Amino acid sequence: VGVTELPGRRRPGGRTARNRAAVVAATLVELARHGYAGLSVENVAERSGVHKTTVYRRWGGVDGLIVDALDAADDDRPVPDTGSLEADLRALAYEVVDTFGDSVRGAVPTAVVHAAFHSERAATALHAFLADRHGRAAGVVARAIARGELSGSVDAAAVVRSVTAPLYFRLFITGETVDREVAGQVVAATLAAVRAGVYRGQARPPLL
Amino acid sequence: VGVTELPGRRRPGGRTARNRAAVVAATLVELARHGYAGLSVENVAERSGVHKTTVYRRWGGVDGLIVDALDAADDDRPVPDTGSLEADLRALAYEVVDTFGDSVRGAVPTAVVHAAFHSERAATALHAFLADRHGRAAGVVARAIARGELSGSVDAAAVVRSVTAPLYFRLFITGETVDREVAGQVVAATLAAVRAGVYRGQARPPLL
Repeated sequence: VGVTELPGRRRPGGRTARNRAAVVAATLVELARHGYAGLSVENVAERSGVHKTTVYRRWGGVDGLIVDALDAADDDRPVPDTGSLEADLRALAYEVVDTFGDSVRGAVPTAVVHAAFHSERAATALHAFLADRHGRAAGVVARAIARGELSGSVDAAAVVRSVTAPLYFRLFITGETVDREVAGQVVAATLAAVRAGVYRGQARPPLL
Repeated sequence: VGVTELPGRRRPGGRTARNRAAVVAATLVELARHGYAGLSVENVAERSGVHKTTVYRRWGGVDGLIVDALDAADDDRPVPDTGSLEADLRALAYEVVDTFGDSVRGAVPTAVVHAAFHSERAATALHAFLADRHGRAAGVVARAIARGELSGSVDAAAVVRSVTAPLYFRLFITGETVDREVAGQVVAATLAAVRAGVYRGQARPPLL
């Protein structure tokens, strides 16, 4: 079942918007309590007070609920701007550690990663979410260049991804924990690669 | 349903071993053709000629089939030993790229990563598989130390993980492709971090 309109985007403050807010909130609670495997349209309908057939019609199913919750949770948090590249990258890494270390805040992004394995729609939403996060975080690198900390030719997205990739790898592939110590090592490794010119230009490998 | 014996470990060459070989081969074919979402005990039973109730009894279900296929596929491939750390790490990275770029070879590890999201048993198998791979690949670092390419105090597992993490991140989280160019960048970043002393000692972050 496809979703033919963006849920809740008509008439802000109207019943549609209130229904969306209730459904998103109920999805968050259900995910935080039972995880992706335990999420059902029935439970979200019951918790939100929105009728099951309305939830099915507007959101299409479990994956639609998760994708909309991700969209609603994308809070345009300001990108770190501490005055140093190292501290900014550290703040970005800590944000990943803190998000997934918090069962409530981490519930939606975790569910989207899970859903992306079998749902094209969830995969598209996840990739757009990460592209947006990585794109905004690239401002950290742009400011380091403006301050003269880095030379002008650096693939900013590659730098940001170098910070997040090892954390997601531990969280979602090896099942290891992430903490501030791991985050510190990830930032140190990224800075070493940046300084060695590995992320120079447009993501091309350096000649070794 | 739990599996109470290792399938096929009794009487090598006997019917149990033949059944296991047929079921593992059928699981590989089904995964390569239809992926994890399309794998079913029914299809594996039909393709292998082993009765469905036998498959359920010995393997417990789809996740048991995948875990056993992973176990059977773990072919003790020799760890690269080219005489240089850089070339060895490159060979490790290429192995990941080539495995997941091949729909047949990549089918089982891909399925295990998917299954690990909702199956404790698959997650345990995945983590053991990666720990074994990373542990064996750490020989690459040990030989670099023996040759005098590196000083003695390097967290070998962290070095190997630094090569594989960005590749798995692209494959399973951002849905980007991996190729030899990406592998080359990953190796260059890892070597820069190693040379900067980031992976010194036992996975402790360096003082910056």
